[in-house]
Amino acid sequence: MAPPPLRCHEETNGSNNTKTNGVTVVANNLLLDAEEFRRQGNLVVDLIADYYAGIGDIPVHPTSVTPGFLLRQLPAEAPAARPGPEAFTDALRDIRDVILPGMTHWQSPRHMAHFPASSSTVGALGEALAAGINAVPFTWAASPAATELEMVVVDWLGAALRLPEPLLFRGGGGGTFVGTTCEAILCALVAARERKLAAVGGHRAGDLVVYCSDQTHFALAKAARIAGVRRLRALPTRRADAFALSPRAVRDAVRDDVAAGLVPLFLCATVGTTATGAVDPVGDLCAAVKKEAKEEVWVHVDAAYAGSALVCPELRRGVDTMEAVDSFSMNAHKWLLANTDCCAMWVRDPRHLTDALGTDHDVILKDAAAEGHHVVDYKDWSLTLTRRFRALKMWLVLRCYGVEGLRDHVRAHVSMAALFETMVRADPRFEVVAERRFALVCFRLRPPPLLPRSNGFSNGGGHHHHQEEQQQEEEINATTSGPYLSSATVAGVYMLRCAIGSTLTTERHVVEAWKVVQDRAAFLLRRQI
Amino acid sequence: MAPPPLRCHEETNGSNNTKTNGVTVVANNLLLDAEEFRRQGNLVVDLIADYYAGIGDIPVHPTSVTPGFLLRQLPAEAPAARPGPEAFTDALRDIRDVILPGMTHWQSPRHMAHFPASSSTVGALGEALAAGINAVPFTWAASPAATELEMVVVDWLGAALRLPEPLLFRGGGGGTFVGTTCEAILCALVAARERKLAAVGGHRAGDLVVYCSDQTHFALAKAARIAGVRRLRALPTRRADAFALSPRAVRDAVRDDVAAGLVPLFLCATVGTTATGAVDPVGDLCAAVKKEAKEEVWVHVDAAYAGSALVCPELRRGVDTMEAVDSFSMNAHKWLLANTDCCAMWVRDPRHLTDALGTDHDVILKDAAAEGHHVVDYKDWSLTLTRRFRALKMWLVLRCYGVEGLRDHVRAHVSMAALFETMVRADPRFEVVAERRFALVCFRLRPPPLLPRSNGFSNGGGHHHHQEEQQQEEEINATTSGPYLSSATVAGVYMLRCAIGSTLTTERHVVEAWKVVQDRAAFLLRRQI
Repeated sequence: MAPPPLRCHEETNGSNNTKTNGVTVVANNLLLDAEEFRRQGNLVVDLIADYYAGIGDIPVHPTSVTPGFLLRQLPAEAPAARPGPEAFTDALRDIRDVILPGMTHWQSPRHMAHFPASSSTVGALGEALAAGINAVPFTWAASPAATELEMVVVDWLGAALRLPEPLLFRGGGGGTFVGTTCEAILCALVAARERKLAAVGGHRAGDLVVYCSDQTHFALAKAARIAGVRRLRALPTRRADAFALSPRAVRDAVRDDVAAGLVPLFLCATVGTTATGAVDPVGDLCAAVKKEAKEEVWVHVDAAYAGSALVCPELRRGVDTMEAVDSFSMNAHKWLLANTDCCAMWVRDPRHLTDALGTDHDVILKDAAAEGHHVVDYKDWSLTLTRRFRALKMWLVLRCYGVEGLRDHVRAHVSMAALFETMVRADPRFEVVAERRFALVCFRLRPPPLLPRSNGFSNGGGHHHHQEEQQQEEEINATTSGPYLSSATVAGVYMLRCAIGSTLTTERHVVEAWKVVQDRAAFLLRRQI
Repeated sequence: MAPPPLRCHEETNGSNNTKTNGVTVVANNLLLDAEEFRRQGNLVVDLIADYYAGIGDIPVHPTSVTPGFLLRQLPAEAPAARPGPEAFTDALRDIRDVILPGMTHWQSPRHMAHFPASSSTVGALGEALAAGINAVPFTWAASPAATELEMVVVDWLGAALRLPEPLLFRGGGGGTFVGTTCEAILCALVAARERKLAAVGGHRAGDLVVYCSDQTHFALAKAARIAGVRRLRALPTRRADAFALSPRAVRDAVRDDVAAGLVPLFLCATVGTTATGAVDPVGDLCAAVKKEAKEEVWVHVDAAYAGSALVCPELRRGVDTMEAVDSFSMNAHKWLLANTDCCAMWVRDPRHLTDALGTDHDVILKDAAAEGHHVVDYKDWSLTLTRRFRALKMWLVLRCYGVEGLRDHVRAHVSMAALFETMVRADPRFEVVAERRFALVCFRLRPPPLLPRSNGFSNGGGHHHHQEEQQQEEEINATTSGPYLSSATVAGVYMLRCAIGSTLTTERHVVEAWKVVQDRAAFLLRRQI
């Protein structure tokens, strides 16, 4: 039976619409025109380049804005009619003149708050390339090269960090790129939970216990809440242990829980805690927990920040015995130049991930080429179906900078932090309040000696001093040419955190930052007299 | 007390390293140099523009690659030494010559599988800008303008989609951008679960029930598994209801569960199901579920695909009564030009989200400027702390194309799908097997009339015919100049899906795609004789 002939197009009145087979076809908008992309793309490249060129000279965060400042400047509704071609140029001007002045500039060389979100030219452009290609590699078939590049690059990165071979594809494990550590921990926790409940029965869901320290990032507590695991033991750390989780405390907690009829499930060890950069003794923790629990306890290592430092052999102290861990995650967007977001996660046995997170009834995603082969379908490795081609930027970073380039990058920041620490120690008004392992220096003004001792770990001035420190932080951050710092309270002591890691930070910025800290301290101390 | 003087820098031997205050400071690598960014950025813009210019002429997916093809071509380790400046150009060449030929090209005008991942020049460049700026707006203070732009843009978008006012900030609700629908549903489900358990007690966690249809995307089942909610009722749909979820079926299921002592928790209604684009009757479902359950049932609308179509008044049939829903999500990266990933989620009462997902003990994230004000800290609205500045690209899309431009974009695809449907209907060998609501056409070869009736909904040829259809799909997708289609099985019937939505698709591509389908059908039918 012959198909019916197709009637010719005819233009409909007054537009580019056509009428074909009786159907009016609306002309499309050419919103992905190659030459338009080239023109607009060059404007964007210039805007970003100019931003980098000037970023050292503007305040690192907007000291003058108050909540609502932008809400008040923008119209309540999106434009209704389609604007003309000048709209893009106008929008870029607004980005430069209205939006950027209201941003906190994470790429400023004086951004020393939180942890860095380190950029590189190839990291940023890798993200731009992925956005341009805009593939959605949820299965192998949905973009074979994207899936396989991800498999290659997680092994490259894992090897560069000298992770245990069993966590790499080539050692029987495997890895993937997700957005954030919050997601990685949740994936690992759900995988552990499903494995455990399969063994002990679903009715024991309320008896599962998760272990961590009081320094563990709240990502774990959040993941546990999302997963409905209600028992979380945040074991106390001590300054004497450099705020690391004690294997003995874990062993005791596990033993007590087993004795109480509970089910130890998951231990999260941290390499580089958020507050002070502490390193939990991973090997000893694995030994403690694997020995004490009757059933298997899943050990996850959260190396969100300091995972990047593992490229340097001299920064691996205490992290070389990770053979027994079940999963490991680190944020390559924090300190390894991969731009936000790029969290790498590896697991010893990917089957536990895919058992917990896989979906097997989705006929819609099957593909002939992949059938009968063992392929990785990354949708079954994480929380989401839709995912970006994050491997591309990580591949570019490794390819263009090499492992040695990444080492230099990390060492530069570590050495600048060492310089900052030296300057703090040389000033008797200040003290360093936690061991510096990486590029984070935790310090404070020494409390006035005449005030009564607080419950802090040194002769702290208690609440009064706490307020002073907070005020110092605010004053430092209010200086338009100063650094942007953040703070933490550990063991009752308020401390300033200087986290060096912005790609643009050089020695000069560190020296100047310290000068601002000293100036504000002098100002505060004068006022007290 | 005067601070100690800073000793001068001196260059250390043979490198740019310096020695300051006795500390050797490693020179940093200048990996974010403005001029280098400009040079590399222009290369990237050209690569992407050239890719768009040629994408219509290459196979939409790699027909010749087999699993492992790329693994075999790449070295086992990342480069050790830092490569020279030519590394970036070399890498771009590899992207063009090795990686892109192994990709499935989601931006191809002939990509008609799954659902579209629609790109636009300003969507892609908005992502590039966000990557370049690389801010991490987890709290208001962490980037005030980014937070406030997000608040503005979700209201703009919600108004453009004519969502009920109570879901918008200006109506007392609010929204955010997360990565994917999987995340949005999980957030809503956990918020609903925490609210419910606070009311009925944590010991009832095992009694919670989630409702959906057998057409609901697996994102819901996955979210329920992650959240530990084990009771999921996937209620059957019928062709007579156009595969929409029946309010009566939901009411009965809820009544039965209440009678059995269970706790109805959550209903997921879909606007535009994955298999056929069906629309659940949201208003009637809300009425059914709110009436029957003793306690509140959270109603979420998953409009991942068809949410974009709500910009067009003529495509809103059955979706105008959403006043009672608790949350709504749609993927602006699917059909609204915002590039992957950009899922918008709105909730009627953000407090339920922040109660469930918020973290209140993170002193480290407090900020003076925000204190005492009511600010939105988006980290408490979703699964993750780290997040990208997604609002920027959505703002650019709305700003540069206007709501009318988005309507034209959607209407172009809907009219092309109407044309495709008309051509299918005009060929007596084929049938359209589900009502077309948007730009998705579900069709199949009519089964041979002499074969016995299957349990499918028409005179289907059963398993034998199923295999034929699968073969047809494979043969269509194996043609190097043909479209890339996917398939679904609904009510036992295997159907081909032609999902029009790529930004580059024009009428010509649709006509040519249909020609390929006809050709392969003729070939298959001849072979049968």
